[in-house]
Amino acid sequence: MTNFTLHSTATDCPARRGELKTAHGTVQTPIFMPVGTQATVKGVTPENLHELGAQIILANTYHLFLRPGHELIRSLGGLHKFMNWQGPILTDSGGFQIFSLKDISKINEEGATFQSHIDGSKRFLSPELAVQIQEALGTDIIMVLDTCIPYPATEKEAAKATRLTARWAKRCRLTQPDNDQLLFGIIQGGMYESERKRAVEEIVDIGFDGYALGGLSVGEPRQQMYDLTEFSAALLPQDHARYVMGVGTPEDLVECVYRGVDMFDCVMPTRNARNGMLFTSKGRLVIKNARFKDDPRPIDEQCSCYTCRHYSRAYLRHLYMAREILSSQLHTIHNLHYFVNLMTEIRQAVEEDRYSQFRKDFYELRQKN
Amino acid sequence: MTNFTLHSTATDCPARRGELKTAHGTVQTPIFMPVGTQATVKGVTPENLHELGAQIILANTYHLFLRPGHELIRSLGGLHKFMNWQGPILTDSGGFQIFSLKDISKINEEGATFQSHIDGSKRFLSPELAVQIQEALGTDIIMVLDTCIPYPATEKEAAKATRLTARWAKRCRLTQPDNDQLLFGIIQGGMYESERKRAVEEIVDIGFDGYALGGLSVGEPRQQMYDLTEFSAALLPQDHARYVMGVGTPEDLVECVYRGVDMFDCVMPTRNARNGMLFTSKGRLVIKNARFKDDPRPIDEQCSCYTCRHYSRAYLRHLYMAREILSSQLHTIHNLHYFVNLMTEIRQAVEEDRYSQFRKDFYELRQKN
Repeated sequence: MTNFTLHSTATDCPARRGELKTAHGTVQTPIFMPVGTQATVKGVTPENLHELGAQIILANTYHLFLRPGHELIRSLGGLHKFMNWQGPILTDSGGFQIFSLKDISKINEEGATFQSHIDGSKRFLSPELAVQIQEALGTDIIMVLDTCIPYPATEKEAAKATRLTARWAKRCRLTQPDNDQLLFGIIQGGMYESERKRAVEEIVDIGFDGYALGGLSVGEPRQQMYDLTEFSAALLPQDHARYVMGVGTPEDLVECVYRGVDMFDCVMPTRNARNGMLFTSKGRLVIKNARFKDDPRPIDEQCSCYTCRHYSRAYLRHLYMAREILSSQLHTIHNLHYFVNLMTEIRQAVEEDRYSQFRKDFYELRQKN
Repeated sequence: MTNFTLHSTATDCPARRGELKTAHGTVQTPIFMPVGTQATVKGVTPENLHELGAQIILANTYHLFLRPGHELIRSLGGLHKFMNWQGPILTDSGGFQIFSLKDISKINEEGATFQSHIDGSKRFLSPELAVQIQEALGTDIIMVLDTCIPYPATEKEAAKATRLTARWAKRCRLTQPDNDQLLFGIIQGGMYESERKRAVEEIVDIGFDGYALGGLSVGEPRQQMYDLTEFSAALLPQDHARYVMGVGTPEDLVECVYRGVDMFDCVMPTRNARNGMLFTSKGRLVIKNARFKDDPRPIDEQCSCYTCRHYSRAYLRHLYMAREILSSQLHTIHNLHYFVNLMTEIRQAVEEDRYSQFRKDFYELRQKN
């Protein structure tokens, strides 16, 4: 028995409709998870997240380990209580952050040694510690510690890192707490199908509550990312959730669901919001553009979010130009609502077995603009 | 008939309990007005303001004149619609901002010429234009354009500026729109009782919907500010609202109400919130202090605000150290709630004719800490 229930699969593509049970509630899939790296989704309150329909959020092990520290969060009752979010939380393990710090980090068999980006202090993270930190945080879905592969990388480099990820995955599995926290394995393999295939076999052989595809959307051509996702998803067991990490644009979500993926996370809606880039059903809108100066319309006339119900493009442009905090708040609410609502529409389309048509309509609406 | 109704006056001090009717609702006095300089109270939504009990907010003519422009706001339906705040709004006239720009502004009989702080362009503001801008914004309470007096200033300097303010006040009065927008006069006079007295006579003689004391809290000793407030308030008509501009600390509010003032505004609760300085019934709290690192208590155990109901000092300190936007949001909600709630308590105390005791208790609670 797994925590994932597959409700239906499209008849003409691998798109799936399911649900994932966690200790803090059941998540309907396919799902997008807003990113709350430092125990807050930047610019919004938990109530905003509830109102805009977010079901599960992501936080980051690496960041919380360094600041404020997992033992502090444990002593205050865990991450849910600390940040006032009672829904499910998935924590990324920190592998990607250590990879991003490659000039000040060193990876060996035992784990990763790195310098804190906050105070420069030397820190060490092992697969076991990564799990223990997430146990202390009390999050619903724990990710194994993995090693990322740079792009481009030779097949030999990719193979070496993928083998290490598999050995670390085993150590994480052995450390999995005996409670209701789920543990997800991560499939690496770089841009090589043979390595992805071997990674799937090794990771599935260890056995996890769900499976993530890591090391995608790291600079490779978009089609290559889609192809590898399709290839890898097809090898994964049907009865477990599939999560593509760090992906992506609205187009990426539509394409990866089409290829059988259930879960996503990305900083794009929140980060772009702060930079004044807004998502709409007809494409993207850059709020500082002078043509919005006196535009009384909402960001998206099709949108039902708080921001679109109450504020004009002209006001939002004013807030952005005046560098007001409310600009980030209102833009973030809108962008997250766009991503969350897109997934709601995707779920309905899969449920009603019209996903291929939905995908076609999605692109057509954008081309009209 | 005036728009101000005096409900009661304390028997042992000039503290007053009243209400002010405006086009967007009736305001209970004494009242504190959160500052929304650029058509947003920094860090909070209008819904946050409603929830924390704000009745009326302040916006700034100078800032909105420069960006986004009053004609733009008029064309979009006025400031209330523009910023999604349906309650009363008072607009400061811009006199204080031009005074603050003294190195790049020049005042003569006609008005003030200054350089925009945004793009350096040369701009001109006359008393008539100041009123016309506020008419375009559609705010509930319009302030006359005044000239501020530096501190210290000689009696001659103070007299000269005060006479000019009176002549400008007359021109503003002649420009007052024939609608339900209220127009408040401003009493200058510097730190000289004789000048304050003459200013009151001149301004009251012109006749306004309410009277403000300007040019206080500009660097003078606190007791001098209180003395001048007491002196000037006693000269003002009982049947009009009295507003001390740009004041102040919780202590200032308590002291000025004690001396017969009805209305206040100050950036302190919002600005200090962003800098991590929080107000409590026992005094001030600097959230970055290391002793709050693992403190599970709310900012103020007596406080019923959203922030205190849901978040620990430890979490708020974490957000502040991590420079998260939510830090400003949560701190601003708390600080504004503190100021708004203080005024609610003040109103109850005046109503029940126990204000002197309230004032005593207010200080005693702080000394205990």
